[in-house]
Amino acid sequence: MDVYARLEELGLKLPPPPPPGGLYKPVKQVRDILYVSGQGATEGGVPIVVGKVGAQRTVEEGQQAARICVMNALSVLDHYLGDLNQIKCLVKLQGFVASAEGFNMQPKVIDGASRLLADIWGEEDGVGARTAISAIELPGEITVEIEFIFQLKQEL
Amino acid sequence: MDVYARLEELGLKLPPPPPPGGLYKPVKQVRDILYVSGQGATEGGVPIVVGKVGAQRTVEEGQQAARICVMNALSVLDHYLGDLNQIKCLVKLQGFVASAEGFNMQPKVIDGASRLLADIWGEEDGVGARTAISAIELPGEITVEIEFIFQLKQEL
Amino acid sequence: MDVYARLEELGLKLPPPPPPGGLYKPVKQVRDILYVSGQGATEGGVPIVVGKVGAQRTVEEGQQAARICVMNALSVLDHYLGDLNQIKCLVKLQGFVASAEGFNMQPKVIDGASRLLADIWGEEDGVGARTAISAIELPGEITVEIEFIFQLKQEL
Repeated sequence: MDVYARLEELGLKLPPPPPPGGLYKPVKQVRDILYVSGQGATEGGVPIVVGKVGAQRTVEEGQQAARICVMNALSVLDHYLGDLNQIKCLVKLQGFVASAEGFNMQPKVIDGASRLLADIWGEEDGVGARTAISAIELPGEITVEIEFIFQLKQEL
Repeated sequence: MDVYARLEELGLKLPPPPPPGGLYKPVKQVRDILYVSGQGATEGGVPIVVGKVGAQRTVEEGQQAARICVMNALSVLDHYLGDLNQIKCLVKLQGFVASAEGFNMQPKVIDGASRLLADIWGEEDGVGARTAISAIELPGEITVEIEFIFQLKQEL
Repeated sequence: MDVYARLEELGLKLPPPPPPGGLYKPVKQVRDILYVSGQGATEGGVPIVVGKVGAQRTVEEGQQAARICVMNALSVLDHYLGDLNQIKCLVKLQGFVASAEGFNMQPKVIDGASRLLADIWGEEDGVGARTAISAIELPGEITVEIEFIFQLKQEL
């Protein structure tokens, strides 16, 4: 399976890597483990899905925001690795959903991200451990922020 | 020390593993490290301790919710490993407490989980690094959600 | 580079390690990886920067709180390792900012921590992956709480 061919099949195009929103590395590697910094629903660093699910945003819009987080993560990984085919699997993701008081379907929102990763890498390697929680506010008012841990096929 | 004998001594019975609340793996292993997805105060996937500490729930009820999160974690680990005695120690846990405005004793709530793990594996192996924070809302309105990292005695 | 000489150059003095605020280890080691428990803006365990950014606290006060979290992390690491020079690099940090409704500059606040780590270990080793999010409340009403993962130069 070639990740780039799979992305094309899915009609997806990697965005340019988002400019860092502060003093951090988009990707930090320890041996074969890649820690990906929190990615948001941004384009070129500009928030494109903003507002809280349960108020300004629907669950479906939240899922779309979660998909954008994944695409930004893939973009910074592609930029870092040079070749996304070096990735073996998702280890874990932690998704934060900007939530209005009384909104309790964070897992449903983060499923947008998980579905996309499963569509790319399959149900075995594309699905990892997960925590889905809320946040009262997120940077730049984005609707979803997700951090990821991936594992490489072999240490570079 | 046999974990199952210890659970019995403590009067505890493993619940059946909770059905996944979305597209994720309850446990993801990387070598001898086990990442356990966020576990909630649920039974058979149904929330059983709900509401915010500082409003609908007391600290004691929050602690009880935290203990249920641990029991669910043990259940998914038992299901994954087949034998909880393969676990060497807790590495880290991160606990989210659904908190009313002005409630600031998240560590006291998460101590419910930490106490139980220490009672099972002892103060050395049952106690790890920890972060205890709040959340404005949690999935299904649960009172506490906890994710865990454990280490195996040896890589399987 | 000697970390202690660098701290002195920066005019910084390690505080005593904060007393644990619950049942957890300040530092948990797995091979060459150090997991540091969530550190707050406390002195001797007593909250010293409290309140929400966007309401009672400014961004600058939040950054100062983030720096105190780093100093407390260095203190527990110094206590655990006996020598901070054994640390190779920051792997990742996750920062929680107690945020008033409508405050969306969490990364700017957490930059206070990242800047200090970069000042000590440099832009390569002092900067890692990062997630900056909000919390509706934090333990003891602290303004910022940060957890860290560091890597040692070699396994002890």
